Amino acid sequence: MIIVLKAGATKKQAAAILRQIEALGLKPLYMPGTERTVLGAIGDERVLGQLHIENHPLVERVSPVLTPYKLVSRDIHPKDTIVRIGGVPFGGRHFTVIAGPCAVEHYAQMHATALAVRRAGASCLRGGAYKPRTSPYSFQGLGLEGLRILHRVSQEVGLPAVTEVVEVADVGAVERYADAFQVGARNMQNFRLLKRLGQSRKPVILKRGMAASVEDLLLAAEYIVSEGNPNVILCERGIRTFETATRNTLDLNAIPYIKQHSHLPVIVDPSHGTGVREFVAPMAKAAVACGADGLLVEVHPDPKTALSDGHQSLDFPAFGRLMKALRPFVQVAGRRMS
Amino acid sequence: MIIVLKAGATKKQAAAILRQIEALGLKPLYMPGTERTVLGAIGDERVLGQLHIENHPLVERVSPVLTPYKLVSRDIHPKDTIVRIGGVPFGGRHFTVIAGPCAVEHYAQMHATALAVRRAGASCLRGGAYKPRTSPYSFQGLGLEGLRILHRVSQEVGLPAVTEVVEVADVGAVERYADAFQVGARNMQNFRLLKRLGQSRKPVILKRGMAASVEDLLLAAEYIVSEGNPNVILCERGIRTFETATRNTLDLNAIPYIKQHSHLPVIVDPSHGTGVREFVAPMAKAAVACGADGLLVEVHPDPKTALSDGHQSLDFPAFGRLMKALRPFVQVAGRRMS
Amino acid sequence: MIIVLKAGATKKQAAAILRQIEALGLKPLYMPGTERTVLGAIGDERVLGQLHIENHPLVERVSPVLTPYKLVSRDIHPKDTIVRIGGVPFGGRHFTVIAGPCAVEHYAQMHATALAVRRAGASCLRGGAYKPRTSPYSFQGLGLEGLRILHRVSQEVGLPAVTEVVEVADVGAVERYADAFQVGARNMQNFRLLKRLGQSRKPVILKRGMAASVEDLLLAAEYIVSEGNPNVILCERGIRTFETATRNTLDLNAIPYIKQHSHLPVIVDPSHGTGVREFVAPMAKAAVACGADGLLVEVHPDPKTALSDGHQSLDFPAFGRLMKALRPFVQVAGRRMS
Amino acid sequence: MIIVLKAGATKKQAAAILRQIEALGLKPLYMPGTERTVLGAIGDERVLGQLHIENHPLVERVSPVLTPYKLVSRDIHPKDTIVRIGGVPFGGRHFTVIAGPCAVEHYAQMHATALAVRRAGASCLRGGAYKPRTSPYSFQGLGLEGLRILHRVSQEVGLPAVTEVVEVADVGAVERYADAFQVGARNMQNFRLLKRLGQSRKPVILKRGMAASVEDLLLAAEYIVSEGNPNVILCERGIRTFETATRNTLDLNAIPYIKQHSHLPVIVDPSHGTGVREFVAPMAKAAVACGADGLLVEVHPDPKTALSDGHQSLDFPAFGRLMKALRPFVQVAGRRMS
Repeated sequence: MIIVLKAGATKKQAAAILRQIEALGLKPLYMPGTERTVLGAIGDERVLGQLHIENHPLVERVSPVLTPYKLVSRDIHPKDTIVRIGGVPFGGRHFTVIAGPCAVEHYAQMHATALAVRRAGASCLRGGAYKPRTSPYSFQGLGLEGLRILHRVSQEVGLPAVTEVVEVADVGAVERYADAFQVGARNMQNFRLLKRLGQSRKPVILKRGMAASVEDLLLAAEYIVSEGNPNVILCERGIRTFETATRNTLDLNAIPYIKQHSHLPVIVDPSHGTGVREFVAPMAKAAVACGADGLLVEVHPDPKTALSDGHQSLDFPAFGRLMKALRPFVQVAGRRMS
Repeated sequence: MIIVLKAGATKKQAAAILRQIEALGLKPLYMPGTERTVLGAIGDERVLGQLHIENHPLVERVSPVLTPYKLVSRDIHPKDTIVRIGGVPFGGRHFTVIAGPCAVEHYAQMHATALAVRRAGASCLRGGAYKPRTSPYSFQGLGLEGLRILHRVSQEVGLPAVTEVVEVADVGAVERYADAFQVGARNMQNFRLLKRLGQSRKPVILKRGMAASVEDLLLAAEYIVSEGNPNVILCERGIRTFETATRNTLDLNAIPYIKQHSHLPVIVDPSHGTGVREFVAPMAKAAVACGADGLLVEVHPDPKTALSDGHQSLDFPAFGRLMKALRPFVQVAGRRMS
Repeated sequence: MIIVLKAGATKKQAAAILRQIEALGLKPLYMPGTERTVLGAIGDERVLGQLHIENHPLVERVSPVLTPYKLVSRDIHPKDTIVRIGGVPFGGRHFTVIAGPCAVEHYAQMHATALAVRRAGASCLRGGAYKPRTSPYSFQGLGLEGLRILHRVSQEVGLPAVTEVVEVADVGAVERYADAFQVGARNMQNFRLLKRLGQSRKPVILKRGMAASVEDLLLAAEYIVSEGNPNVILCERGIRTFETATRNTLDLNAIPYIKQHSHLPVIVDPSHGTGVREFVAPMAKAAVACGADGLLVEVHPDPKTALSDGHQSLDFPAFGRLMKALRPFVQVAGRRMS
Repeated sequence: MIIVLKAGATKKQAAAILRQIEALGLKPLYMPGTERTVLGAIGDERVLGQLHIENHPLVERVSPVLTPYKLVSRDIHPKDTIVRIGGVPFGGRHFTVIAGPCAVEHYAQMHATALAVRRAGASCLRGGAYKPRTSPYSFQGLGLEGLRILHRVSQEVGLPAVTEVVEVADVGAVERYADAFQVGARNMQNFRLLKRLGQSRKPVILKRGMAASVEDLLLAAEYIVSEGNPNVILCERGIRTFETATRNTLDLNAIPYIKQHSHLPVIVDPSHGTGVREFVAPMAKAAVACGADGLLVEVHPDPKTALSDGHQSLDFPAFGRLMKALRPFVQVAGRRMS
């Protein structure tokens, strides 16, 4: 850790801080300069957190040398992790597509969708039972009834099921009915929920928050992994910026960054990432091309009557065309569609 | 609601949409133009949500005429609402300061802080027992033990207590030990929590999320109020932007905007809003000047040893100076310090 | 144009505004609602700009129905425009790569680079003579001498030359020595420069500003085209967001958006868009996949000694590998490398 | 300067970099750690810019210890600089208001406005002759004719004149007719223009760009000062964020930050900073309260007919009320209205 002192800090004051660093078992370093004095602390600087050195009135700035996350870092786990949802692999040479409606509405809708996305080549089924909605006047999901429909259809059609969990109290029910948890953007820093999911063994798809940096996302994953569940799949779904032409700004730069810094699989949600039906296909192809491990795509039998997110959902023929168009990109990317 | 159709939409297709609008009891309007056709729907357009008109493949764009929130809007409640925390008023002509440490650490820390902030003129005490932290390796709060310390000190010193609640399961305990709930930025769209707090009668301080627009904040408040709890105090605490000179960008524009659009009180958190101890005082004065109803300020007996947020906490003398410096601003703003 | 009046506007006041709309030759519409009155104006609403209706104290909000740009819009020019730089086509089925160093440093550097990028398959050469730099203490470019070196190498190697122009006074010199103008992100709204370039016939590569929406970019292009120069190539190069993991956030959503709304070619600059050498290749592939018409890539003989942007420049072997890796993506995207 | 090497960098490779640092006359430091090696360079690290150490393939990250600006820094010039526009002081204990229309439209408009703002207490007159506008179809200003009107009115009414300069070619004319240059947000990084203004002796009001960090703003000021003109007044006018409730997000945090880091005066433009007439007064008061040295306010005889920015302009009575309401805030802030 590098500690820049404020102008005017004396040698004696610096020495007091250096003694604290040494007391923690780290190697202290003193670098007096003409305008500023710089201190260093060598060793596992995560223990320095205990000192709260950034609070010190003489400290101008602190720069960590190491990343604040550890278990999810490629530094300590150089090989790609492969996470399986009900047997379906994510990561490595696989390219895997999860598809389904934003919200579970009723059995017929789910069943028709599951058949259609399976036929087109998707290997997992999504569908939300608990829907976090910006307005209290919007459809909030079917709850437990939705989970049951999802589970039944998943069994009948033979596609593992993925669904969002929004609260600790629901973890048991979701664990029973689904093959993987999804944590939505608004809950990416619901740390209590993350810890609880860390005690499960079922995989977690962790979506990036709208104001979350990639480092925040990796730290959120660290919460889950550090509780004992290594089965985390990251998901880029767009961040909030000044641009209003699209619902979110899909940050595909995050894909090579995550691949470089972490061993976890990362998928892309081009439906939320654009918010526009016509842009789902081009951005899905871009996701393959820049190294993503899969997709999360919204598909609905009749988007214009969908109870949520219809404007960004594909109907069955459009999803079929998307999957067909994706295959050659998956192939030239050196991947295999799972 | 104004509905702009895509180029190429026919008169017949427009007529079908107009019939749907009419079927909901709204008055439909047809405005054919040279390049685009525009439709209108007059009446309480919130019922139009049922139609999901934005999903329609021929619809290019939908602009609501009315705000999506209703109960928190000044349109239907023109007078300022005054919310009381344990008898202490927020709103109207009052200017009210809540102060205390980021986290409850132990009894002596809380007791000393409570005495100091009361003496300086604060009228509520804050202190976090449940701390949402970006890294799993940071201090996570004392939990129930922290609530008990806060409660005891609050009773002894005679300052109502405010503390953060992070999960539905904790609402009962917080309700028992504190005089007001605080919902943190990361939970502003934890809708399940908002609904549960809407069933309480204790006031809720609702902090704006880092990526939340002011409209999102008002909709989050609408969740609480629509469940039956009218005692909501909004809190501006900075948003996330490209600027890294300060921890967040304090959006004081939000204060006059909220005052114009809502009857709820709104306070400012200059500690998180800047993340820099030296900037707390100038931004606190700015908050008074632009019309805020109060402040939420982090104060700690010894910021350089604080377990969280020490770099933005004031010590007792600095808080004393802040309160003294604030008074003349409160007075010329036509307010009275509660 | 849709005009929402403030609550409390009377019928008489609305009538006065409607008369102004009518006086401009537009068809006025009156839509009284229960909470707000809405007015409409049908016809070419761009003439409404003269009324400055948004200034009116009774007007709450104005929503245009039509896009504010016209000549660059696909509405009035449905087919893709193909722009040629010294004979090299951009747009349509072509995929075209411009490569070269950030800054022209000396003849040997340019000549070696030109040969290397030509061999690898690039069809235009870039190199900056006038460098806008954030700090006055950074290298500012060779100026006219740089233009001459670029021109000589361009002739010798047979690659058309692209270079940045930063001021009206330099337009003549750049026009003489280069085959295309580049307008940098910081000058995207230097409207005087845009107008002057509109009077040239040489193509203009217009880079998106760091805080510019896609609509702002299209309006900037409209400045050039409306002065008479239809040869504009748009360039996405990343926007400024809260994310600091990469230098900018490359907004690839902009590619399908621009393709849908405009007939102009659009290329991507993955060097500035990421600021990280290792991410150039994955994002270049993503650009092909989502429909971009080409790339602008920084290549330098020895990036670690480059006078600017070395950390994001590719050396010759890396650029060779990039071009080889790109070809299969270009092919499956249904494009032909120019 | 602190240099973090990539994992895997050898001792020998580090030594080569250290030799380069030493060759520049800086003191090198070697800090091997368990996961990463860190190097240091002590001395005036601005000379390290020549090494372009960040380009080196083994360098993961470089953190400067010193600010990249120097002449505008409070480190080397601890006392407040007072800049005078035609004798009117900005900085120190003064609080100074510049007012006038966005654009010069005609003599009568300017003359009436000048009289009204002088009467209300403003001490400088603004008015734009060259208007950078997002759309080519908007009013672009009267040019030289506008400068002449501004000058005549300025002389007649006895208020120094401030006007925007958008291009090097216009500097001479603006210098002749106005008492201070204004550089608009879109030109904050028009470095050629900044350098040219650095060769003048007339003061420059430098507005922050929409995507510019405070550090970028200070570096832009450094361009002017390093060319020899110390008379720079900084201006916060809002940045571009995801929030659309207001035209820009006025970043008042920037005021105490600039005051801490620079000796230059800084004023606030609440008209552009909010884009909403009703919010100008509250944000003007907030600007006083947080330590700004003055204001730039748009005033127009009849905002609803203004050719630009009418929706954010105050009419004469509103400006009179603003100035009256400001005085007590100026007084309690310990300032004197100039």
